[in-house]
Amino acid sequence: MKHLNILLFNGFTTLDALGPAEVFSQLGDRIRIGYFSMAGGPVRGTANLEIFTRPIEEIEQYDMLLVPGGFGTRQLVDNADFVKMLKMAAGRSEKVLCVCTGSALLARTGLLDGKEATSNKLAWDWVIRQSQSVIWKRNARWVVDGKFYTSSGVTAGIDQALGFLADTIGSNVAEKVAAGLEYVWNRDKNRDLFAYQNNRNSS
Amino acid sequence: MKHLNILLFNGFTTLDALGPAEVFSQLGDRIRIGYFSMAGGPVRGTANLEIFTRPIEEIEQYDMLLVPGGFGTRQLVDNADFVKMLKMAAGRSEKVLCVCTGSALLARTGLLDGKEATSNKLAWDWVIRQSQSVIWKRNARWVVDGKFYTSSGVTAGIDQALGFLADTIGSNVAEKVAAGLEYVWNRDKNRDLFAYQNNRNSS
Repeated sequence: MKHLNILLFNGFTTLDALGPAEVFSQLGDRIRIGYFSMAGGPVRGTANLEIFTRPIEEIEQYDMLLVPGGFGTRQLVDNADFVKMLKMAAGRSEKVLCVCTGSALLARTGLLDGKEATSNKLAWDWVIRQSQSVIWKRNARWVVDGKFYTSSGVTAGIDQALGFLADTIGSNVAEKVAAGLEYVWNRDKNRDLFAYQNNRNSS
Repeated sequence: MKHLNILLFNGFTTLDALGPAEVFSQLGDRIRIGYFSMAGGPVRGTANLEIFTRPIEEIEQYDMLLVPGGFGTRQLVDNADFVKMLKMAAGRSEKVLCVCTGSALLARTGLLDGKEATSNKLAWDWVIRQSQSVIWKRNARWVVDGKFYTSSGVTAGIDQALGFLADTIGSNVAEKVAAGLEYVWNRDKNRDLFAYQNNRNSS
């Protein structure tokens, strides 16, 4: 059984985390999903949602790490303790999936240096300022480079999660999960319908 | 300010509730989102998510009521106390949005009698058995009849929520929210790409 460890923080975008979580959840007993944060305890996301988390030290198996984005990332990129903790967790994990501005956090760890990555288009200018060593790819629904998956904004995380299942288990499984969620999967990771968008103060 | 009251129960499908919640959340200060259940307290959904809820009596304004689906509906359709509570809450609410098998629950209240509605295609046969007085419309992404919105499975709830914003605030707002979520909105409520699916033991 594989573990999907979701790393939350105050000000995360709820759907960044729970869209992919629902995708993985469709695998049933093959997956165990857990919610973690730096210190544990309740963490608040968008949509007035509070999720109870365990401290990051309690991760049992470093299989997949999911890092959502959100307004909370704006402070966290400058939080040395958080960045150090993320570097440890992402470094140990077999695979890392960032959604939206989650890639800005990962960029600050240095683990994306020399690698391709993408992020939310409405926060693009801010994201790419977080590291000049990342090869930022603006026109992509999601990007895969080695063990790192990074997606565009919010719902691109659902497409990326399905892409991850296709890459790691098989495209038939991804198609079945998408159909089960009655989700019109945007299969092509290089096709980005939102790359045109201008920056604004978005999450 | 309008209130979106989300009615949860053990065994709800997380994305049924939190996809639409994220859509409404984009309205910022214009919306207040709350999580409720029959008795209050922690409620468990798919993806190993536990949400803390308030008792249904604590709803302050009966504006919009959101009812997700999920495996938990299979028992709840026969729970007279739950159905009575739902009938009260849905009856008092200005608008009611059901996602997936949430419409099976609403069907049991009688409030959908003589009205058009839809639901998850993989659970279709079970859903329509819950009431013969509902005009079940199989081929629809979502259905609007009076104050009642009912959608197909899981992610159709996101499309429906955007449709609700288009109907009640304006299509420009719906388009802007979809773009903010980088979501490829399936705008046409009559276009159902999953109506072909056969039944199986799904939520």
